[in-house]
Amino acid sequence: MSPKITTELLKQLRQVMRNPRYVQEPVQAYIVPSGDAHQSEYIAPCDCRRAFISGFDGSAGTAIVTEQHAAMWTDGRYFLQAAHQMDSNWTLMKMGLKDTPTQEDWLVSVLPEGSKVGVDPFIIPADQWKRMSKALRSAGHDLVPVKENLIDTIWTDCPQRPCKPLITLDLSYTGISWRDKIVALRSKMAERKVMWFVVTALDEVAWLFNLRGSDVEYNPVFFAYAVIGMNTIRLFIDGDRMMDPAVREHLQLDSTLEPEFKIQVLPYGSILSELQAVGAGLSPKEKVWLSDKASYALTEAIPKAYRYLTPYTPICIAKAVKNAAETEGMRRAHIKDAVALCELFNWLEKEVPKGTVTEIIAADKAEEFRSQQKDFVELSFATISSTGPNGAIIHYKPVPETNRTLSVNEIYLLDSGAQYKDGTTDVTRTMHFGTPSAYEKECFTYVLKGHIAVSAAIFPNGTKGHLLDSFARSALWDCGLDYLHGTGHGVGSFLNVHEGPCGISYKTFADEPLEAGMIVSDEPGYYEDGSFGIRIENVVLVIPAETKYNFKNRGSLTFEPLTLVPIQTKMIDVNLLTEKECNWVNEYHRQCREVVGAELERQGRHEALQWLLRETEPLARGQ
Amino acid sequence: MSPKITTELLKQLRQVMRNPRYVQEPVQAYIVPSGDAHQSEYIAPCDCRRAFISGFDGSAGTAIVTEQHAAMWTDGRYFLQAAHQMDSNWTLMKMGLKDTPTQEDWLVSVLPEGSKVGVDPFIIPADQWKRMSKALRSAGHDLVPVKENLIDTIWTDCPQRPCKPLITLDLSYTGISWRDKIVALRSKMAERKVMWFVVTALDEVAWLFNLRGSDVEYNPVFFAYAVIGMNTIRLFIDGDRMMDPAVREHLQLDSTLEPEFKIQVLPYGSILSELQAVGAGLSPKEKVWLSDKASYALTEAIPKAYRYLTPYTPICIAKAVKNAAETEGMRRAHIKDAVALCELFNWLEKEVPKGTVTEIIAADKAEEFRSQQKDFVELSFATISSTGPNGAIIHYKPVPETNRTLSVNEIYLLDSGAQYKDGTTDVTRTMHFGTPSAYEKECFTYVLKGHIAVSAAIFPNGTKGHLLDSFARSALWDCGLDYLHGTGHGVGSFLNVHEGPCGISYKTFADEPLEAGMIVSDEPGYYEDGSFGIRIENVVLVIPAETKYNFKNRGSLTFEPLTLVPIQTKMIDVNLLTEKECNWVNEYHRQCREVVGAELERQGRHEALQWLLRETEPLARGQ
Repeated sequence: MSPKITTELLKQLRQVMRNPRYVQEPVQAYIVPSGDAHQSEYIAPCDCRRAFISGFDGSAGTAIVTEQHAAMWTDGRYFLQAAHQMDSNWTLMKMGLKDTPTQEDWLVSVLPEGSKVGVDPFIIPADQWKRMSKALRSAGHDLVPVKENLIDTIWTDCPQRPCKPLITLDLSYTGISWRDKIVALRSKMAERKVMWFVVTALDEVAWLFNLRGSDVEYNPVFFAYAVIGMNTIRLFIDGDRMMDPAVREHLQLDSTLEPEFKIQVLPYGSILSELQAVGAGLSPKEKVWLSDKASYALTEAIPKAYRYLTPYTPICIAKAVKNAAETEGMRRAHIKDAVALCELFNWLEKEVPKGTVTEIIAADKAEEFRSQQKDFVELSFATISSTGPNGAIIHYKPVPETNRTLSVNEIYLLDSGAQYKDGTTDVTRTMHFGTPSAYEKECFTYVLKGHIAVSAAIFPNGTKGHLLDSFARSALWDCGLDYLHGTGHGVGSFLNVHEGPCGISYKTFADEPLEAGMIVSDEPGYYEDGSFGIRIENVVLVIPAETKYNFKNRGSLTFEPLTLVPIQTKMIDVNLLTEKECNWVNEYHRQCREVVGAELERQGRHEALQWLLRETEPLARGQ
Repeated sequence: MSPKITTELLKQLRQVMRNPRYVQEPVQAYIVPSGDAHQSEYIAPCDCRRAFISGFDGSAGTAIVTEQHAAMWTDGRYFLQAAHQMDSNWTLMKMGLKDTPTQEDWLVSVLPEGSKVGVDPFIIPADQWKRMSKALRSAGHDLVPVKENLIDTIWTDCPQRPCKPLITLDLSYTGISWRDKIVALRSKMAERKVMWFVVTALDEVAWLFNLRGSDVEYNPVFFAYAVIGMNTIRLFIDGDRMMDPAVREHLQLDSTLEPEFKIQVLPYGSILSELQAVGAGLSPKEKVWLSDKASYALTEAIPKAYRYLTPYTPICIAKAVKNAAETEGMRRAHIKDAVALCELFNWLEKEVPKGTVTEIIAADKAEEFRSQQKDFVELSFATISSTGPNGAIIHYKPVPETNRTLSVNEIYLLDSGAQYKDGTTDVTRTMHFGTPSAYEKECFTYVLKGHIAVSAAIFPNGTKGHLLDSFARSALWDCGLDYLHGTGHGVGSFLNVHEGPCGISYKTFADEPLEAGMIVSDEPGYYEDGSFGIRIENVVLVIPAETKYNFKNRGSLTFEPLTLVPIQTKMIDVNLLTEKECNWVNEYHRQCREVVGAELERQGRHEALQWLLRETEPLARGQ
């Protein structure tokens, strides 16, 4: 992977930073955040501005360009990748390390007195604007909104914004109609005494209307906003997608409806002016509810006194708790996904020794097997297919320049998932196709112990996920090992593979308490730069637990694995497991056999079934 | 314990809330926080305004009185105590429970439109003022500073502010001179480019000048402020304490000193006007460093643009990391404290069966034994001596009305500690003088497992204490049990028994990372309302750990118990312990025998030594 040469691009950007056609006054620094106007994590090609200017295309990162400097902030998952992809014009700012300055502190240290720092007000979330604006102001600088995106002005071959057809989801998938979701939302609005709710996140729009799209790769969403009043519904969406009879029928656009369920369809680009009109027409005490992560531009459309901002919207919280139809769909999707992976691993076991399977071939084969399953739509994220040292690049994606051949001498890490119409999957398995070393087995077993510690944890109702993070690390810590990423994230139901408001992380973000029906990943790891990477990831469902004393009726929770793919026993040093941990592995493998075995049988995949049976032989301690 | 009758007092308070002599405009609500002008946790009798108005005298709580209502916010430690001490005029707001409103939300729900909410600007910390003021303003109300404290106006027999003699500490106790502390502080100030630092916390003033006092019970502090400039030192302190030749010598008040170490002594009451003068004389870029918990009054004395506020001051952080002299002093203090407790428990074992020992007698006896030890100064907090159901009142203090007799049928919980000139102690032991039930042993053993899980935890350098909290709960959680308080707090060195900036709690306050030399408590518990309380508490020192892989040279940490008092083996269900836990208990008891045994021998306390030897017999699993 050779870095992108950015000298010329940075020169052009610095020119437009001074060009009166785009900026009222020259800006001495320009911030290029990761996101799009919806603060999405995964973005359309037309929104990959940070990757365009820097070459670094990981999922998280913020670039800041000044007259003299160009700096990139990213987290532990991407330190290696960013270092590889950026040229020497760029300074890598490793977030989470003690000596790394914050963006604000760095700006203050490099800017001349009284500087202007520009940013696209549609791209920066309101909460970040506030924090940065305050820090800059207190140092004598100003954060200013630059209406035209400066990257777009120099990005001559910028792709078009996608506008693809929509998929409608019926009750058998969603469990609840969009009308009932609107009713529930309005009741939350009434509770908080707000009159309007602005839906800005793409997955929230999709969830609310039981629609899916494919405007963004991996995330089945479409570009749209919605504004929900107590008696009105406005959907801002472009293209002829609303001409599709199935969509019209689904949204009852041509039916005689009670007025409060009549959907008014407006152009995507009219959201700002429409919201400004709402803002101008508010009577005292009429509040407008927005996420505090909504864009600065939309937030500013509502006068400050009328804003009601929360870190998580009522849709985000409702969406996180899966209903019976969604949970059953997720179970089905995970069984199909396991079938595909049994096929893949059986195939790899035969092919890898021949020396012909590269990371890309393996990733493609995984996609091929998944695409054979019912209701398969697309992958849920770029497959991380990595062998040997590439496994230590936490969010690695194989490209021709780095593509390595799998061998019987290296650990292979596969983190992959898919979107099925009934659910979203995300699973990581770490395999060795030869004989792992004692050290590799030792590290793998600590990671497994951490995985089990979270998966089998019992905790009181109302516990926040971040309180479970250290359980995943304890076995590693005992030996002086750790990993620089969180342990889990929320997972959507045929929606984004990363979603809020819950997670399991040492970073104490304001996560919401875990409750039964939420779905998160459990994915501790261990990475040795230049050698190998290990991660064991299941998607798990929060379920009520049976405990002896039940927290004085507060209720007990635990996790149930939805992912049912064997964990390679060859990599386990059984003597490092407790009896309880050993039993957990055996019971997990029993379930894989029973549930996935039956499906392999049903699909007539007999060779993969034999592989499954071999891989799920019970462990015996002291062996 | 009968509640305080507050009808008449509340009537008087509501009158002064409307009295133009005290308030410019009537206030519809008046907030009475816990603290004093230094935001101390433990306060002098003259500052116990919240206890005076409500009757509730726990260490944490905020009262708010409106025209119609009186409400008290406190946390899980005090739910029972507050309910017992307050009459029906008061509504108890149980913090941490899901349905309890915040103070702001409650005020907004009960206040008539456009209300004024009053508070003493010296008592409310600036960060709380900011949060509350913002919330009230957004609901159309105003938070207003009321210069004269309204409680003081109706508190006719309010005691005088104490002004007791000072103790000077030499290098053998402090390890570093006050001059060197000033030098280190000024270097931190230079790093942050601030010109002035305002010392507002009493323990920070005491630590900085290597002085101690006795103005506040249990905390060896004295009423004072300090303002440190790059070339000046101002100490604001009252009384003839500065006439003491030992103090004058210690502070070198009469020596010819470099001007930057010359201490200017000013009256305590002149801090506001002096600080206002500093604020008025600042040139651009001259910042003043204050804690964001300093009072609103002092914070406002510095114009906003010149303030540099941090959650923890450089003194707070420096004070938390104990040097070799302090650590050795803490070790000595804990050995002496253990001697006193061995004497006590030996005595209780003989006396309790006679039915003559009450909670108060036991507490007094503990103090008597402690006071026989060298350099004993006073207790470090009100002894929690509680038997049976009183043990479930987490911060119980025996008073004649509740005083219960210890018996062979009930669990006894003793949480106590002392101030010695060389260190501060805080230890909880839970004992049974008869035969504990299987359930009591079960609960005790889970608490012990949690205690060990924290004490033996290994973690990477830079880990924050809150990430260890769940380790203390895991064994309890597995059976559906929990406790409603944090697991540990920082402990001062002959200073406050509770100190920042580190701790071990599920509440994710902004704790600083743990580092070697910090001292915290490890005190999980379990409480059954109406039946019993269990807590096992040691004070532990953060030390480097030896690990196989040492976190890629990031460094490993663990804890070493400073407290060396036997944990009652009679209460342990050995079959619930793992081999590792069993070994931990045996090794801990071996240390108690070796270290405390030698001291008991040296002090000729042979009967207590025999008790120690009996109580530290090794556990055998499967017994």
